[in-house]
Order: sequence, then C-alpha cells, then structure tokens
Amino acid sequence: MLIAKACRFGGRVRSCVVKPLACFFTSSSMAKSKFEYVRSFETDDSCLRNCYIVVRLDGRNFHKFSEQHKFTKPNDNRALGLMSRSAHSVMAEMEDIIIAYGQSDEFSFVFKRTSNLFKRRASKLMTHVASQFSSSYVFNWKEFFGEQPLLYPPSFDGRVVLYPSNRNLRDYLSWRQADCHINNLYNTVFWTLVQRGGLTTTQAEDRLKGTLAADKNEILFSEFDINYNNESALHRKGTILIWEKRDETVTKRVKLPNEEEKEVPVTRSRRRVQDHHCDIIGDQFWEEHLDILEADNC
Amino acid sequence: MLIAKACRFGGRVRSCVVKPLACFFTSSSMAKSKFEYVRSFETDDSCLRNCYIVVRLDGRNFHKFSEQHKFTKPNDNRALGLMSRSAHSVMAEMEDIIIAYGQSDEFSFVFKRTSNLFKRRASKLMTHVASQFSSSYVFNWKEFFGEQPLLYPPSFDGRVVLYPSNRNLRDYLSWRQADCHINNLYNTVFWTLVQRGGLTTTQAEDRLKGTLAADKNEILFSEFDINYNNESALHRKGTILIWEKRDETVTKRVKLPNEEEKEVPVTRSRRRVQDHHCDIIGDQFWEEHLDILEADNC
Amino acid sequence: MLIAKACRFGGRVRSCVVKPLACFFTSSSMAKSKFEYVRSFETDDSCLRNCYIVVRLDGRNFHKFSEQHKFTKPNDNRALGLMSRSAHSVMAEMEDIIIAYGQSDEFSFVFKRTSNLFKRRASKLMTHVASQFSSSYVFNWKEFFGEQPLLYPPSFDGRVVLYPSNRNLRDYLSWRQADCHINNLYNTVFWTLVQRGGLTTTQAEDRLKGTLAADKNEILFSEFDINYNNESALHRKGTILIWEKRDETVTKRVKLPNEEEKEVPVTRSRRRVQDHHCDIIGDQFWEEHLDILEADNC
Amino acid sequence: MLIAKACRFGGRVRSCVVKPLACFFTSSSMAKSKFEYVRSFETDDSCLRNCYIVVRLDGRNFHKFSEQHKFTKPNDNRALGLMSRSAHSVMAEMEDIIIAYGQSDEFSFVFKRTSNLFKRRASKLMTHVASQFSSSYVFNWKEFFGEQPLLYPPSFDGRVVLYPSNRNLRDYLSWRQADCHINNLYNTVFWTLVQRGGLTTTQAEDRLKGTLAADKNEILFSEFDINYNNESALHRKGTILIWEKRDETVTKRVKLPNEEEKEVPVTRSRRRVQDHHCDIIGDQFWEEHLDILEADNC
Repeated sequence: MLIAKACRFGGRVRSCVVKPLACFFTSSSMAKSKFEYVRSFETDDSCLRNCYIVVRLDGRNFHKFSEQHKFTKPNDNRALGLMSRSAHSVMAEMEDIIIAYGQSDEFSFVFKRTSNLFKRRASKLMTHVASQFSSSYVFNWKEFFGEQPLLYPPSFDGRVVLYPSNRNLRDYLSWRQADCHINNLYNTVFWTLVQRGGLTTTQAEDRLKGTLAADKNEILFSEFDINYNNESALHRKGTILIWEKRDETVTKRVKLPNEEEKEVPVTRSRRRVQDHHCDIIGDQFWEEHLDILEADNC
Repeated sequence: MLIAKACRFGGRVRSCVVKPLACFFTSSSMAKSKFEYVRSFETDDSCLRNCYIVVRLDGRNFHKFSEQHKFTKPNDNRALGLMSRSAHSVMAEMEDIIIAYGQSDEFSFVFKRTSNLFKRRASKLMTHVASQFSSSYVFNWKEFFGEQPLLYPPSFDGRVVLYPSNRNLRDYLSWRQADCHINNLYNTVFWTLVQRGGLTTTQAEDRLKGTLAADKNEILFSEFDINYNNESALHRKGTILIWEKRDETVTKRVKLPNEEEKEVPVTRSRRRVQDHHCDIIGDQFWEEHLDILEADNC
Repeated sequence: MLIAKACRFGGRVRSCVVKPLACFFTSSSMAKSKFEYVRSFETDDSCLRNCYIVVRLDGRNFHKFSEQHKFTKPNDNRALGLMSRSAHSVMAEMEDIIIAYGQSDEFSFVFKRTSNLFKRRASKLMTHVASQFSSSYVFNWKEFFGEQPLLYPPSFDGRVVLYPSNRNLRDYLSWRQADCHINNLYNTVFWTLVQRGGLTTTQAEDRLKGTLAADKNEILFSEFDINYNNESALHRKGTILIWEKRDETVTKRVKLPNEEEKEVPVTRSRRRVQDHHCDIIGDQFWEEHLDILEADNC
Repeated sequence: MLIAKACRFGGRVRSCVVKPLACFFTSSSMAKSKFEYVRSFETDDSCLRNCYIVVRLDGRNFHKFSEQHKFTKPNDNRALGLMSRSAHSVMAEMEDIIIAYGQSDEFSFVFKRTSNLFKRRASKLMTHVASQFSSSYVFNWKEFFGEQPLLYPPSFDGRVVLYPSNRNLRDYLSWRQADCHINNLYNTVFWTLVQRGGLTTTQAEDRLKGTLAADKNEILFSEFDINYNNESALHRKGTILIWEKRDETVTKRVKLPNEEEKEVPVTRSRRRVQDHHCDIIGDQFWEEHLDILEADNC
C-alpha cells in the first residue's frame, strides 16, 4: 500500500502517515469527500473594486490564419464584420460591459467600475469573454464568408487590466486607437505601393523605412491621388460598440372592452448595442456620450 | 481645455498639471507614446513554478443548453463525443498538457509541472484553453449532431488551480471522477424511474431522497434488472485523454541507385492523444502510465 | 546518490534525471549558480498604479501587552505618544507617505497615488513600515515610559489595501476615525463607571449593554458632570500626521569681503511632519489641506 | 455640498448620486457602517497550500549602519549574535517555523508546508516576522554591544517565497549558504590584505579582481599562513536554527502520602531552538535531521 510507506528524500524522510491536510489511504472507493480538500488550492482573484475592468482579446497566429483564409489586404471587411459580430454577442451576454473597442484581430471590453459580475473574479470574466467571442466567431463565420469554408477553429487569448480613473481608461482606449491608426496608415501605403505601384513587398518595405506619418500621407496623395482622411473610418478608427437607448415602435393588436380589436402603435425605449467608427481620443465623443463613464469621485 | 483645470474634490484640490504618470494635455493627436504608460497597469500573473497547472472549463447555462438542443437523458453520447473532440483540439494545440479529464459539461486540462508555455501566465493559459475549446465545439458540432442545428454559440468559463504534489493532483482528478460517479449513478436511477418506471420527475426525486449508493444500485438491480457496473464506462468513469506513443507503419516509395523504385514499409513512433474510460482513483492506471507524472522530488 | 534514483509514487514514477528546471546532481560544492533558479519562484506583487496604497499596522496581543505594562485606562498618553513617535519615524524614512492616522494600537500610513517607492512592491512597503515602526517603538520606549522597563519586544502585523479614488481613501480614514470614536466613547463611560462610579467591570459591562451613543453621553453628563465633547481630542479623534511647510529662521555667521563677520537671519521653507487631533470625516480638514490628495482625474 | 454635484470629467459626466457602492452623503456624523464598505477592497493573499513558505528579511542600508556602529571587519560577532538572538525571538513566537538560516544582515525563516498560521496570509506572516525581528534587535542590542549605543532604530524589509518541493527548498537554503561562502571568502581575503598585508582598500580590490576561489585560498595560505577551512564556521557557514528535543531534568519537591517530602529528579522532553554552523548543501545535515522536512508525496 502506497501512502503509509516512508517517503524518500535525501535517503529517508519522515513518513507522512499523520499529515492532516492531504494524506490518507486512497482506496479506489468513490468517497468524494476525501478529495474535496483540493478546492482549498483555488485562489481568490477578484478585481480591486471601483476600477474599470478591461478584458482584451487577441487572435492567436492570425497572420497565418488570415493568409490561409485569403483575407484581402490591407483590410478584409468580412473579417472585421465577423469580429464586430462576435463582440456584439459578448456584450449581449454581459450587460455590465459599457464600451468595447476593436481593430484588426483584437477587441477590448470594458466592464463598468461598479460591476459585480462573477463577483469580479478575473478568471471568470476573461474566460467567459474569450469563450463567447470564439464560439460566436465560428458560429457566424458563414454570415460573413459565405461559401468560403472555415478551415480550422481559431483561438483568441485574453488578459485583464484594471484602470482606476476615467483618464487612465480613456488613455487605454486612446492607446489602442492610436495603434490602429499607425498600423492602418502603414498598411494602406504599403499595399497601395504593391497593388497599384507595382512594387514587390520587399521594395515597399524599403521605401517606407524611416518615413513619418506626413511622408506616408504625401506618398498616398502625390503618387496615388489618395487622401488618407477620406479612407474608410472603419479602417482608420476601428470599431466602437456602446449601448444606446432607442425608441422602438411596434404595432400591437389591442382589444378594448366594447370596441373592436384594432392595431395600435406602441413605443418602447430599448437598449441596444450600436457600432461607431469615430475618434475616441479627443473629448467630443465622450461629451456626446456622458453616460458611458462613471464619475471619478465615487 | 480639460486637464489643466484644477480638479474638484471636496471643493478644490491640487491641480494635476505636474503629475508625471498619467496627466498630460490630450489633443486628438495620434501620438501613441503618450498613452503607452497604460501598459504598466498590467500585472504579472505567472503561476508558481514546479506546480501542476490545472485549467478547468465548465459549460455556462448548460442545463438550458442541453434542453434546447434535446440532449438525451441521462447522457447524450453526441454531446459527450463533441466535448471530447474539443478537448482533443486543445491538447493538439498545447503539447504541455499531460492529461485531461472530462465528464458532463466540464473538462480539466493538466499542464506539466515544468511547463513554460506562455511563461506560465495564468491568463494566457486559461483564455487560450477556453477559446480553443469553444471554437472547436462549434466547429465540430455537425460531426456529432448532423442536421440538428446549433441554435446559438455556447460558452465555457474557466479557472486555474495549482497543485504542488503528485498526491494533490491525483486527488484533484479523483475528486472530479468521484463527482462523475455520484452524479451518473443518481441520474441513471432517476431517468430509469421516469423512463421505464413511469414516475413523474417529482416522484422520482422523492423516491431518491436520502438514498445511499447501495440503495440506488439496489433499485436498478431489483426493479429494472440493471447492473450498474455493466453500464457504459464512458458514463460511469468519464473521459481521460493522454498522450500515447504508437508505432505507425506507412508505405513509402523509395528509389535506390541501381534499383527500381519500390514500396517499402517505414515505421515511426508517433505521439497521439488516446481516450480512456477507466478508474483513475486507484493506483493501477498510474502504474500503467508512469510517464504522465513527474517525480515529486524535483 | 540521491537524485538519480527513480522517485517513488504509486509504485514507480519516471525518474527525474532529465528535469531541466530543478534537478541536478547536488554535491556539497558551493556552486551558487546551480541554485539561483530558486529566484524564479518569487512573484511580482507590485500594487496597481494610480491607487492610494494604505499600510495598516495593528499591535499583536496588545491587550495583554497593555496590562503587563500597566497602561492607564481608558487611555495611556505615554503609549499613545510612543505610537505617534514611531509613526513619525516611519514618515521620516518614507517621504511618499502623505498622511498617517493612528488610534489605540493601530496606525495607517497612506502612500501617494503616484508613488514609485520600492517599485510599489507590496511586500517591501509593508515590511519596511512594520519593521521601522517596531524598532522605533522599542528605541523610544524610555522617552515615554522613563524607568518603567519594557518587558519584552512587542510586535505589529501589517497589511496593504489599495484605494482607487479620493472618496474611497477618505472613507477608509473616516472608517478608522469612526472606530476610534465608538471605542473611546465606550471606554470612557466604562472606566468612569468603574473608577468613579464604583462599579465592578462586570456591572459596568451590563450597564452599557444595548446603550446608544446618546445614552452614553447622557450617563457621562448627568451622573459625572462630564461633557464628552470636552474630553481630550487626542482620545476622541486619534492622531493625524501630515507634512507641513514651515518657514524656519536660523542665525548664520556670514563674512562678506571688506566687512566684519556678522550674524544674519536666514529663512528657509522646510517640510516637517505635524500632529493633528481633529475631525477628518467632514470636508473642513480636507479643504484646509488641499495638497494632501491628488486629483482623481489623473 | 459635495457629492450630489455633478462630477466633472471631459466637460460633464453623469452625476454619481445613485452609485450604490461608494457614494453617499457624508456628514461628519460618526456612522461607522457607512464606511465599512472599504473593507471589501482588501484582497486575499493566502499562500498556496502544501508549499513551504519562506520569509526572508534583509537589513536596510546596513552598509551604512555597520559603519556608523563600527562593526569589525570582515565579521562582527556581536552583530551576528544579535541577528541570531532576534531570529530566536521570531521562532519562539511562531512554532510553525521549522528552520531558519542567517548570514550577514539577512535571515530566512521557513514555515512548514502544512502550516495554517494566520490562515497562510502572506502579509500577516511577513510583517509579523519583520516586526518581531526588528523590535527584538533593538531590545537585545545592549546584551551584545554593551555600552556602545544604538544610534537610531534599524529596519529590515521582507518578502515571501513559496517552494513546492523539498528539493526546491533545499536549493533555496543552499543558494543562501553558497552566497555566504562566496562573500565571506572574498571579505576574509580582502580584509586580510588590508589589515595584515598593508594594502589600501583600492589595492586590495584590484588584487582580487578576476580571482577564483582557489586563488583566494592560495593567497590566504601562502601569504598569510591561513587555512580558510579553519576559519570560524559561524562566518563560513552562517547560522542554522532548528528545533531540537532535549531531555531536561529538574528537581521537584514531592510529598507522597505517608512519606516525608523529598526532592526527586523529573525528566521532561522539551523542544527548544538550537544553533548550528554546518554545511546544509550536502545530504548529511538532512539525514541527521529527518524531522525537519515533510515528505514530498503528501
């Protein structure tokens, strides 16, 4: 029998016959209670209160994934649409998400400061977001890619970051949108040089080495007659998802006493998620949507 | 302009003009570097070294999901097959998983003690597992459910638990298998009483109130001629996935100098994941698979 | 030799000869580099940025300590003075502490939001505070207790708590001051009933059971002619320590060319820690000391 | 009044009148319950079970401290004795410490794997150790330094590290003892060159640049006739503290019926802390003290 034997370390070590925590005779019996002590190894990972909780997802190996699925360059609207669709699915499941921001193969979800969802447990929050997003991505593939088959199930990894103040949260979102801008400007020039300028990818890379934003804008404008600011806002700004109240009017058949049944319009205020593709670095967006952020001094 | 104004709290508070960390004039410029300080809010959540890392997934609202998708009672082999298929997909992606155990709508994945995958970062490990499992579940639905449609994308949440010793890890797995046993015995009797005994679900519940394992076995045997131990091992024991080396022989066409091209059998040892449905509480399984666990005294 | 032997678990387990992490032949040689991998078991416990860091110390077994050292009841001014003296010593060592609050055998120290002391590592911050406070307590004992000897070295335990907003931090401090008030009112009445009213401690306890604050004030006033609000602010409000700028004028001997050496007054602004015993729950204190808190919106 | 005002951020932001968590009208009333929500900001930092818990203390600025207190070079036996004395005081307070190891201005304390002291809360464990050690250091100063005054209260910082296996723990202790060896060999040669060889400290530094252990031993032996292995074990090996059972015989006066009262010897087994200065890198020490470590396979 196993456990009662002296355990070996450095020759001999105290046998563990009397350990209260973990050691006992283990028959193959099914006595579940014997094993339940293992639950005490779980740790509490609940997020500090009164902070915004951000869950960011990133596609794993999406460079390869996008090539195998022949995404158009520099942006594939089907793929961006599917990302946004999956993010909608996440927000529908978790109403404490006040804003989400996506670009390329990443999406960030912001839970309100006072959220108590899953008791603020980081592991629950991030795995639920990652799982819901991923299964939605596969589920809705066909809606965006039609007959082009999904070759294998993709994966997204996630992380949790806490932000104590509105300024910190806004700076986080600004960071992601600035990242979108920088990458999209580069990719736009790069693929224009290749697709319309006839350069090889190596030549395009060399051409762009060391250029600043102004240089890239100039290449687009003077050589290809493209004004970058007129390019698609979806590509330049990414996708912002927020909850918005809309009045919805539906027709209901109503039967009042002593009257004939008739159709009446009924208007209800409903919360639904809306897409935006605007600047979120400046103040204007936030001034127009005062209900997204909670006050700092709470 | 916002930030240079004195901030208000309790009347007036020191203005934050000179804060080095987070405060600066925010034009809507795209200067990404201004915002990058937000990365310093991320925390390191790497797992203690030399411990087994367990990621357990649990289906969210799977009671409802199973009813909406008409899972057979007490066990639906299509659903169990799809769970196992998704777990295979996870193990194929992460070779540091040495064993996985699943039952009902849950699956546990055990990373080897010495794994350095994702630098042992808990968030990466659990979100990647949750994401890969979920997208595989949707991706492979049709293989198991055929024309029955998946109504909406399901979600699984996850957690990470660390176990420092082989005994702790084995007790964790024993805990899950004992849970499988207890639930399956109950469900087997319950649905036999309903489906074959003609009881309502309420009557079956009443009948089983306070019964022990022996009582349940007796009901099955004396009233329905069922020997529980002869029931499907898949249902009684759950699913164990481990890596196994197999010799695979393939035929290759070989052309040697001065000879005609010919077919020769080539044998290679390959690692692949194998399903088991056996007891893992006792010692036998572990004695037959010595290469799963690493020695404690390392 | 030890390590190369197969390790035993459940019969036999894979020997650990090839483990890269931790296993190697351990001669008694002094090769330090062999062992340095153990540093990788340390975890990063740095505090979330842009939050106030509070370290609270509590005396261990101070009920017994106070009896053995014959502290006067209900408050011992020597003991309170020594606590405050030790807190001064902590603040002198760590200038990032913006305010400290003490009462009874506890003291809380608040680090500014933007502090980067010890890279915000929680363990360093709390152990340094606990250590400095404790050694100061013993070092300065004689200054407050004179010839009465310190019988053994006392101990204080500590913890770290983070507060993201000014409101949260103020509520923390209010919580501690409200605790001070409640305990001091109770103790004042209790010991007045015993020392001046002639009750036994049990009788005093019974007398106070279920009384509200108003009842306790009434007992003091009607039976002992004591207006609680005129009692010592040190006892009612506890001790607040903050940094204050003071102009200090010192006399310096100066020798100018072609003049005789003479004494001139030199005024410099110096920061020093000042004690207060006032209300910190209301707004007045904070409005009078606007430089303590940093603005929330940073 | 403060809180009901709309809070300002980016112009205007939703007022926080209805925040359930943290916002309420704060009069200067003493209602403690209003503030108690701040307790929910404390986080659980309990240590993973079944791991050794090591608390290591390091003297802060002890280079300066040792110069100001004129410690003899390369080792000051008074200072080392005081360190050991303080460590005894810590062990006496916390019986779950199974071994402690000290050298220079550092001391490590190892709590047994199964300890449940302070519910394994890291913050409580490390602050209590740091506090007890520090107050003991000051308390016992005079016993070791006599009339030489302690100029100011010293401080020690601490950290917690977890080790899952006996091998990891032994390697940690080996790491510290190897560090002791390397530093002491260097310091011994350095100060011999200075004190007996007449070199300046700069010359001694240059002389030792790039030398290996063998070179240093050779300098001591050939130039100063010193065999390093005959130097004090306290300096070469540091200090190991462990609990040991000792039979203690005391004389008791006993009065049996019908006999005269007489003195009888009574022997009791008592646990007390014992100092060692031996090698703990090799196996011998551990084979002679089998009761220190608990078996790995529990």
